[in-house]
Amino acid sequence: MGILVIGSMALDTVETPFGKLEEGLGGSATHFSVSASYYTPVSIVAIVGDDFPQKHISFLQQRNIDVSGIQRVPGKTFRWAGKYDYDLNNAQTLKTELNVFEAFKPEVSVAQAKPDFLFLANIDPVLQKNVIGQVKRPKLIALDTMNFWIQGKRDALVEVMKEIDLITINEGEARLLTKQSNLLKAARQIREMGPKTIVIKQGEYGALLFHEHHIFSAPGLPLEDVKDPTGAGDSFAGGFMGYLAKVGEVNIDTLKQAVIYGSVMASYNVEAFSCERLKNLTEEDIRNRYKAFRSLSQFESSY
Amino acid sequence: MGILVIGSMALDTVETPFGKLEEGLGGSATHFSVSASYYTPVSIVAIVGDDFPQKHISFLQQRNIDVSGIQRVPGKTFRWAGKYDYDLNNAQTLKTELNVFEAFKPEVSVAQAKPDFLFLANIDPVLQKNVIGQVKRPKLIALDTMNFWIQGKRDALVEVMKEIDLITINEGEARLLTKQSNLLKAARQIREMGPKTIVIKQGEYGALLFHEHHIFSAPGLPLEDVKDPTGAGDSFAGGFMGYLAKVGEVNIDTLKQAVIYGSVMASYNVEAFSCERLKNLTEEDIRNRYKAFRSLSQFESSY
Repeated sequence: MGILVIGSMALDTVETPFGKLEEGLGGSATHFSVSASYYTPVSIVAIVGDDFPQKHISFLQQRNIDVSGIQRVPGKTFRWAGKYDYDLNNAQTLKTELNVFEAFKPEVSVAQAKPDFLFLANIDPVLQKNVIGQVKRPKLIALDTMNFWIQGKRDALVEVMKEIDLITINEGEARLLTKQSNLLKAARQIREMGPKTIVIKQGEYGALLFHEHHIFSAPGLPLEDVKDPTGAGDSFAGGFMGYLAKVGEVNIDTLKQAVIYGSVMASYNVEAFSCERLKNLTEEDIRNRYKAFRSLSQFESSY
Repeated sequence: MGILVIGSMALDTVETPFGKLEEGLGGSATHFSVSASYYTPVSIVAIVGDDFPQKHISFLQQRNIDVSGIQRVPGKTFRWAGKYDYDLNNAQTLKTELNVFEAFKPEVSVAQAKPDFLFLANIDPVLQKNVIGQVKRPKLIALDTMNFWIQGKRDALVEVMKEIDLITINEGEARLLTKQSNLLKAARQIREMGPKTIVIKQGEYGALLFHEHHIFSAPGLPLEDVKDPTGAGDSFAGGFMGYLAKVGEVNIDTLKQAVIYGSVMASYNVEAFSCERLKNLTEEDIRNRYKAFRSLSQFESSY
């Protein structure tokens, strides 16, 4: 099978200068799996409450996502509310209600236990490590995290980092984790902690990939209308991992292309609230934007 | 002849977490011309006081820069003092003593009055416009400016912008000038003000070029040791204009390459205080770093 993702499913309330969404489909596992579903089969392990709208599950199924690992339990679904200002770079969290997510014990079924690729989305590092123990060693294990865990569960995070191949992390988090302002030095320090491949996300400025002795910089695509950045990082990870799983080979060339596919999906994600823009992309949409990234960044040698 | 540059020459005192420089060679015309001198002949129009060390003039002459347009007048040279914190993105200005620069009246000699390329470095837009009136219409006129003029002499800046072909401006200044947070929209508005080519500098994140319907994003090269960012923008402009003047053709391909050569020079500039690192570059240094930028940003089409 393709990718197994473990992460959150949520109902998001988001306000930006360009509009407001009340209790829309959100969560790291959601954005990731919808994005990755354009490239490869995806299987989710997550938890929702009994108030979670069935239409969202149906939508995931329509995208051929395996929803059998989504536990539905009595209680309320995880809710998050946030607000963005004009710069759209930093969310101000207004509310975090963990609800059923607080007691989440991920359970990987026998059918899901042999993924080629495993993505540990942004959840408690203790749970991330627990999931690794439940699967046959995949071809690649990737992990995402955030400042909350870096500050609050550093030891557990350091433990799980020893077992992963790749980490996606944003600039600020990379500096927080390593106490190192220089990104080259931060990346080197993160590599010493375990993952041999590092993707540092830079928001509207793109992303940096570190792999062996290579460094690759993917540009941020200047967009006319950014509506809602929520889930950009998870959509990025979905396109990135989805492409790697599709080609099945992990080397510097496929990793570079994967960073671009991740950027393609993130750029679509931010053009609408929730997962709206990711619902009905065509192969041509994806190809056209990949070409836009090439045109944006490719230049001739002058020698 | 190649490039005529008009701008400041200064004695800079700079403090960063990595050291301190007292009254080193600085100024926009200085950084620009030293950088451009690796590509094409450069001629300076500027002013210094009678305290300006002759060794600095001799150094410029050694780099084959035409210094005949540097007026030496009684009084003290322009002095600037600034301090950078660990993030190295924003200078905190500690002191600005205009001194002889306050009464600067640029005078372009007959021998300098037919430049192929004219660079109006960051000075009073009234003086920038005055210089355009003193030269035969060049192949390309480029201008740099800063928040100080955008806020204090907006009308004069708008006037001179009508007569230029290209502007280099940083992100924050582009937003300030257009009151537009979206960079695509800001660039479009700037184009309507006059210059048909726009380079938006993004500091450590690189630069964006807008030309006709093209957009090009040059990456920022992750550097191990950044010592002093002072003059990065002018070194960028020097490499950028220098390369254009060298190839003599301005089109989207040469502009993209020029942005990379500008980035190459800026990346060397910040590795030492003042112009120290730009003093003794070899052609191989420049070629190697150009290749580093290619390796950093080029990827294969996946189609």
